[in-house]
Formats: sequence, C-alpha cells, structure tokens
Amino acid sequence: MMAFFRIFMLALSLATLANAGGLRATGDMGVVVERATGSLLIVDRSEHAAIARVTGLGDLSHASVVFSADERYAYVFGRDGGLSKVDILTASIAKRIIQAGNSIGGAISDDGKLVAVSNYEPGGVRVFDAETLELVADIPTGAKTIGLVDAPGRRFVFTLWDKGETWIADMSDALKITKITDIGKNPYDALITPDGRTYIAGLFGEDGLTALDLWQDNPVPKRVLPNYGRGQEPLPVYKMPHLEGWAQAGTRFVLPAVGHHEVLWIDARTLTEVGRTQTHGQPIFAVARPDGRHVWVNFAHPLNDTLQVIDTLTGEVIKTLKPGPAVLHMEFSPRGHELWTSVRDAGRVEIYDTQTFEKIGEFAAKSPSGIFFTARAHRTGL
Amino acid sequence: MMAFFRIFMLALSLATLANAGGLRATGDMGVVVERATGSLLIVDRSEHAAIARVTGLGDLSHASVVFSADERYAYVFGRDGGLSKVDILTASIAKRIIQAGNSIGGAISDDGKLVAVSNYEPGGVRVFDAETLELVADIPTGAKTIGLVDAPGRRFVFTLWDKGETWIADMSDALKITKITDIGKNPYDALITPDGRTYIAGLFGEDGLTALDLWQDNPVPKRVLPNYGRGQEPLPVYKMPHLEGWAQAGTRFVLPAVGHHEVLWIDARTLTEVGRTQTHGQPIFAVARPDGRHVWVNFAHPLNDTLQVIDTLTGEVIKTLKPGPAVLHMEFSPRGHELWTSVRDAGRVEIYDTQTFEKIGEFAAKSPSGIFFTARAHRTGL
Repeated sequence: MMAFFRIFMLALSLATLANAGGLRATGDMGVVVERATGSLLIVDRSEHAAIARVTGLGDLSHASVVFSADERYAYVFGRDGGLSKVDILTASIAKRIIQAGNSIGGAISDDGKLVAVSNYEPGGVRVFDAETLELVADIPTGAKTIGLVDAPGRRFVFTLWDKGETWIADMSDALKITKITDIGKNPYDALITPDGRTYIAGLFGEDGLTALDLWQDNPVPKRVLPNYGRGQEPLPVYKMPHLEGWAQAGTRFVLPAVGHHEVLWIDARTLTEVGRTQTHGQPIFAVARPDGRHVWVNFAHPLNDTLQVIDTLTGEVIKTLKPGPAVLHMEFSPRGHELWTSVRDAGRVEIYDTQTFEKIGEFAAKSPSGIFFTARAHRTGL
Repeated sequence: MMAFFRIFMLALSLATLANAGGLRATGDMGVVVERATGSLLIVDRSEHAAIARVTGLGDLSHASVVFSADERYAYVFGRDGGLSKVDILTASIAKRIIQAGNSIGGAISDDGKLVAVSNYEPGGVRVFDAETLELVADIPTGAKTIGLVDAPGRRFVFTLWDKGETWIADMSDALKITKITDIGKNPYDALITPDGRTYIAGLFGEDGLTALDLWQDNPVPKRVLPNYGRGQEPLPVYKMPHLEGWAQAGTRFVLPAVGHHEVLWIDARTLTEVGRTQTHGQPIFAVARPDGRHVWVNFAHPLNDTLQVIDTLTGEVIKTLKPGPAVLHMEFSPRGHELWTSVRDAGRVEIYDTQTFEKIGEFAAKSPSGIFFTARAHRTGL
C-alpha cells in the first residue's frame, strides 16, 4: 500500500509541475528561426531567454512565421514547401505538411481561420484551414508567386514574378479573384502598409515601384519612385532589399536604396522621395521603431556586422552598433522599448534597449535568422 | 488497494483536467466590465463567449483596464481608488489595493514594468510596480488629474484639470518631471496618437483643443480646432465626448462633435477640420476600425440604442444598427474583422461582423460597460 501511496503522491506532484509549467500566457513569447538546423527556438521576451527548441522543421532558409489569433501556434513556412504548425506552449509540432516543392512565405487571414502559402513550384497560392491544415483552396497562377500578404476582409494579395500581375483573392465568401495587370517587369517582393490599404510591389526588371490602393473596387496600378531601382549605379547589388521593412516613421516611409549606401525617405501620402540618408553599407532592412521616432538599419555582406540608428526628425545617423558577424534580422518588442537581433555567425541573439542603445541581454542560438514575436498575430500584413 | 487505485486514477484525471483547462494562450482573451456588480467577465474572442466571472472589484463605474506585457494580467482601475490585478488564466484576483480615494484611469509603461493611476482625491498620479503593486512613485499635483497615458521611453503624460498644465513623468531613470503650462481652461480628457507622438487635451472651460508634440524636447502647446467645443450651440450637451476614441482613418482623424449630431474629420498632419458628417445623435465614441476604412459611432442618452457606421472615403453613413438600450462601449478585434459592443440595459454583449454588419454572436453580462481585449498590451496609449 505504501508503494501505491508513493506513486499516488508522485503522480500528483508531476501533474502539479506540468500544470505550473503549462499555465502561462503567450503575449510575451516568440520564435527564432535556426536556419542551418531546421529548428525553432521558443523565446520569452520578459526573461530575455530561449526556453525550448523544436526540431524537424525541414529547410528553413528564408523561412517566415505567422501566429494564430490566440498567439499559441506559430505557422512556419519553409523553403522546401513545408508548412508546420508549432505549439509554443508545449514546444511541439502540432501538424506538419509538405504542401509544395518550393515556397516563399505565407500569411494568415484577419479572422485567423485561413493560412496561405505562396509557391514557386508549382507556382501559385494554396490556402489551408488554420486549425487542421487541410487544403481549402488551390490557386494556381502558372508563375512564381511572391509578395503574399493578408488584407482586411479575409483577403490575400500576391504577385506573379513572370507575368507582372497582382491578384486579390477574396475569401470572405466563395473564392473571388481580381487580377490586376501591368504591375511591371519581374516584381520580386511586395508589402502592404500597416493599415492594409496600399500594396506596393518592387520590380527587379525595371526601375520604380508599383502601388495599388486596395480601398478602390478596381485598383489601378500607379508607378511611383521612378528612379528607385538598380539603374546605372556604380555599386554592385549584393541583394535586393526587403520591402517588408518599410514602415511609417512620422509622416514618411523609409526605404532601403538598391545598390547604394543610403536609405530613402518617402512622403507617406504622395509616395514621392523627400530625402536620403547616407549609411554604412547597402541596407537590407530599414525598420521603424513602432513609435516611428527612430529607424534601425542592417546591411548586406560584407558590411553586415553593423546596425545603424537614424533619427527620424533630423535624418541623421545617431548610433552605430557592431553586434558581430552577419546581423540578419531585427524585431522590435511590440511597443518598441527593445530590439532583438540575430547575429548568425556569432551564434547568438542580442537584445538592445532602444532608448540607451545598451545591450541588455543575449542568448545562444544556432545560426539564427528571423525573429518573430507573437504580437504579430494582432497586426495586418506581417 | 483498489480504493487507493481508484483515488490514484481520480487524482490523475483531475490533474489532467486542471492542466487541460490551464494550458491556453491569451492572445484572444479579454474582459468586460460589469459596472453595477463590481465584477469582470473574462471572455474568449474565438469562442464568442464569456468563460468566467471575477467578483469583488469595488466601484467599477468609469472603470478602465490595461494588460500586462504577457497578456496574462488585467489591471483594473476602479472609481473608488481600487487597483486590482486580475489573473485571467485562473480567473482570480492576484493582488488588490486601495491606492486613493477617487481615481480616473490608468496606464502601463512601454516595458510593462510600471502601472500608473491618475487620481482626483488626493490629486495626482501614483506609480506602482506591475508585479507586486508596491508604490514606486507618488506624484502629487495639487489638482484633479486626468488624461493619463503612457508614452514611449517609460514615460507617463497627464493633465491637471484645475491648473491647465500637462506634466510628463519620465521614469526611464530617476523620476524627472517636465511641466507644461498654458494648456487651457479645465482640460477634461486627453489622448495620445497611436504612434505616441502627439498628446491632445480637450477643454471644458473654453473652446478648442491643445496639442503637444512629444518628439520635441520642450513641447510648446499648440491650440488647434478653435471652434471645437460647446460654443453657442443650440443643443444641450449631455456628455462631453471621449477623446480616447480618436483614431486615424486614412489620412484623417475622426472626432465626435460636442453637443451636435455630427462627427468632425480632422487632417492628421495639420490638425485642421476638413469635413463633417451628420449622425443619429450626439456621438460619444467615434472609433476607426483598425484598418481605418470605416468609423463606428455610438451616441449619448436618449439616442443611445444605436450604432452608425461611416465610410471613410465618402464620409457617408452606410449602416445604422439598433443593438438595444444603452450601447456604451465598442471594441474591435485587433485586426478589425469583428466589433464587440456592450448593450448595458439589455444585459448583453453583441458581436458584429464588420464586413457584413451581421450580428454573429452574443452573450449575457450584468450591466456591461467597457470591453478590453488583451491585444491592447501591445499598443501605446490605450
């Protein structure tokens, strides 16, 4: 009987432990992509720490992540067409499918019910039930598909590299697709403004960008920033900049220049250039702190050991930091008091106070790249 | 031995149940203030349901709520000076203090470490450790204190009704207070723009509003909208409108008129009036859907059974809804696909699809007023 009593007590204490471990909120959690090992670190923002690792996620080069509306599940979009649903409370894979041969990013609908993935091979977008990962809609495009974002009203917007078209898939009722032609030659990436109104595609095949006003019933492509692009610049282009970095800073957007050591300031209403700031190298991401007061910039190889901070009011670089080799990605805490950055070749994530620019934390990670906080669940177009 | 075995199995299943119940994410949760009974309903956005009730919170008339950075704790500011920290995962009061005699709202710092409360009696602001609710700073003002908001950089901003001053309390290091005079006669409420840059006080004692640019080292009060206020209008003023409702819709802010059956459209850059829309009654809250495409408005007694929806592009009322008696408060899901509203005298909360305007859910609540979703944890000035 004593043996049963001991088992009984052990069962109770284990159960209590499990409960204490399980009972936690998710608003201050996030994930870090470990690209070389196909794994994900689960992180606690408040603790400045990694708390678990989830392995077996396939090829995570250029992987991106969105979160379920309850901030419990991370949907991980792998380069190999893998779509994984990771439970960050239990640090386990809840579901995983291989949905295509070569994919390039995803999005989640505003109601949190649908997860969409854009694919190179076969070209198109596939939409899955966020709960079960069962296929809900297959939208072949006959082209490599890029720049997939969610838009209000259960819509997804994406662009065809080969055809220069942007499609709007409205899934509020039966699937309805609006096709917009004449976007430009070889659009390579796109973004949607934080309010979900303006979709902007970057072009690889020609200079300039193309904007669509999604508040119009039939959006008409509008060419903006006609000199933006590779043009005849003297510097080699190491990497086309990411447009996802665009964010509003005061009344302006900030945009990494292509091939030049500078960022461009764009008037948010007219989408015309209103200034430039010289930077350390070719910018990859130029991201505004959530309050817009500062812009943080990282750079292309071989100058990618550096971060710079630009003051929005003056346009001056006010701080240069050297986190270490291969600073790949930056993520702000949702209200902007901290910035987390991946220093891939140093094998660590560093955390900075955005007021003092002091390093206030760090932890080890295996070749970290993208950092994604759960607060993204509540925002459009991320 | 069989008896022990049965107890053992029961203990295991109870423990499993507790764990299953406890293990949940908080990104889709929220609370509804039940003002007459001093209680809080804990709600699940995904389930369209109340899941628990927490009682014993004192006088909750005009109560407001902020959330901890991890979205686990709701800080409830009662009219009677009570400050309660409610654990929404366990539906229990984690801490509760009476911190003053008569209070009017609170805020949480951008790093989630400090909770501030503004008080009428004794007049001033008190700042507490968010973890323990121990007093961190006492800032007497010698005046009724209103319009308390958080601002980036561990700052709180608030305004003195009797003195017409706005104070900025910077708590990034040792407490530093900046006092700005000449705000105007009897400021009664204030707001901060979503980017945390512009603080705007409404005046009861004179017409007009006063704006401060918090990006400046020494903000200078700027009078805007000189005709905004009670003026000589023919209609009685039932209630001064809430300024917290201000939100950006496209390039404009929307503002409830004082005493008139209309809302004002304000250019977001110049803070000048650019148009008006006639409405059903005197607006109380005019809140923009998170994407800014529509504005939802509720009204003062006796026309407070109605909601109207205004199209931002045309300025036209496109929908009139009649939820029932005493529509007090509205809260959008963070990405705007749903609107939840309190219908106090019908004793229920109703949920609307913001695309179709169909009612898609409802549940019972005792005299519900404010509705607050956990996503507020990630935003400035709420």
